Amino acid sequence: MISKIQITEAHQKIAPYIHRTPVLTNTYLNTLSGANLYFKCENFQKIGAFKARGAVNAALNLSQEQIQNGICTHSSGNHAQAIAYAAKILGAKAYIVMPKNAPQVKINAVVDYGAQVIFCEPNLPAREAAVEKIIQETGAYFIHPFNNQDVITGQATCAKELLEDHPELQVILAPVGGGGLFAGTCLSSHYFGRQTLAIGAEPEGAADAVLSFKSGKLEQAPYIDTIADGLLTGLGELTLDIIRQHASDILLVSEDEIKHAMRLVYERLKIVVEPSCVVPLAAVLRNKALFAGKHVGIILTGGNIDLDKMATYLS
Amino acid sequence: MISKIQITEAHQKIAPYIHRTPVLTNTYLNTLSGANLYFKCENFQKIGAFKARGAVNAALNLSQEQIQNGICTHSSGNHAQAIAYAAKILGAKAYIVMPKNAPQVKINAVVDYGAQVIFCEPNLPAREAAVEKIIQETGAYFIHPFNNQDVITGQATCAKELLEDHPELQVILAPVGGGGLFAGTCLSSHYFGRQTLAIGAEPEGAADAVLSFKSGKLEQAPYIDTIADGLLTGLGELTLDIIRQHASDILLVSEDEIKHAMRLVYERLKIVVEPSCVVPLAAVLRNKALFAGKHVGIILTGGNIDLDKMATYLS
Repeated sequence: MISKIQITEAHQKIAPYIHRTPVLTNTYLNTLSGANLYFKCENFQKIGAFKARGAVNAALNLSQEQIQNGICTHSSGNHAQAIAYAAKILGAKAYIVMPKNAPQVKINAVVDYGAQVIFCEPNLPAREAAVEKIIQETGAYFIHPFNNQDVITGQATCAKELLEDHPELQVILAPVGGGGLFAGTCLSSHYFGRQTLAIGAEPEGAADAVLSFKSGKLEQAPYIDTIADGLLTGLGELTLDIIRQHASDILLVSEDEIKHAMRLVYERLKIVVEPSCVVPLAAVLRNKALFAGKHVGIILTGGNIDLDKMATYLS
Repeated sequence: MISKIQITEAHQKIAPYIHRTPVLTNTYLNTLSGANLYFKCENFQKIGAFKARGAVNAALNLSQEQIQNGICTHSSGNHAQAIAYAAKILGAKAYIVMPKNAPQVKINAVVDYGAQVIFCEPNLPAREAAVEKIIQETGAYFIHPFNNQDVITGQATCAKELLEDHPELQVILAPVGGGGLFAGTCLSSHYFGRQTLAIGAEPEGAADAVLSFKSGKLEQAPYIDTIADGLLTGLGELTLDIIRQHASDILLVSEDEIKHAMRLVYERLKIVVEPSCVVPLAAVLRNKALFAGKHVGIILTGGNIDLDKMATYLS
């Protein structure tokens, strides 16, 4: 189990390489929700998403032997950039397996950090096979996007910062994909909060975590259909275990609720966010009675959105 | 002439009602421009734009007699919201003349502050006639959007804050519409900078200020065609006078350069801005040699953009 001191030490270790991101509040959204909302802006984080925290922590914990042949992962999204960024910090090589239909802007970002991109067919078996081949050929060290203790510990530093800035928080919400951020949020709420609850939020169109949370086993989503493309992944053994132990609940939201929350964040907070990251705000607005009058932290996870897609979602 | 102490006093007076907005930096945009850029984020200001500064300062300087019948203005944009907000602070009535084709979102925002909206035909004579009628009927006090000493003094507090946070700035750029912000920027660069230059930026499709700056008379733009809808207005006598005395230059940019700068701000700074406010960044990127290696402040003036228009500009 990840301890309080491990999270504190990880935070000190990664501090030179990450931003302490700002927390925004907004009168209009407080009135609309009936709660006091505190938005932790990880869209302003290095690489544009919280994933920098976990990847940098995992990378810094590797030995010289482990990194001598580089590090590798597979990802179509923010973890790809995060590992490329972490490798640059270490001065190590990075091999990133990306689906060949990944957005050009994300491929460019990974290449800009000096990583080598290996393309594969856009499905999980193809990705895993490609990574396996890279490991065989190069000896690179694989860093899993969420089912990795050091990654979860790094992601936990986000809720830790939020609680340092706002110790009055009664709840912290985070979106749930693979569960790395949410597991970290559960741990930091437990260790650093004053009885702060951790609540996850998930699209109805990728609702595996809510089922796994209830059954205690890794469940499949009944169907996959959501614009929250960062939340398509299912939980891992490690993240499920932590979430089962410390989470208060996981709430579901519809696609219309996600789009409505997107518009609110763009119009009112004036910041650029990706669809996955407004899922917790949508959950608060769907469950107003649950949060009425409370001090509620919301982790806005990232802002890496293709501008053409943004235009589609907002118009 | 507006003095240094007047700006300092205005700043103290409006401080309880405005945000001290953050300053963002970005490694990618520094590399791209070859300069060190400091973005003053007035899109996070009250009412979503710097106009809150000037309107609040002007309103707070009115006597009880002057405000007893309320305050009024005409505007399709941010000044409308700013005056409505200022009236709410004073507990005074506000009458806002808006063109009947103004975006619903801006009308709603004005109404939300408790102001009364009077619609008119979308042209300047109709607006001025409607305001004149309001003044005759109600006795409300008219606050001009830029050709007003207290408004200019309020807008000057923006560059003052930027120079307090970054005294190393060698240049500050602001967009030029009616010139209230740019005149204030000229004054604060002069009074609070260490030989800091003030440079204006204007669209080629609304290029009156650059002509007026050269001739010393109020000139018309050769043609009007720009997405920077906040910069359509020509200078006033008062703003031209200050700009002639203290500005270093006014630079022009094309529509394509504005759109390119919009994409950069959304993709890299992850913030929502309106087209008018990226005109200075576009000017820096068009004139790289002029700014190479320098510490350059850029005022991002506002973030009140219709989401449908945003989609069009960015896609």
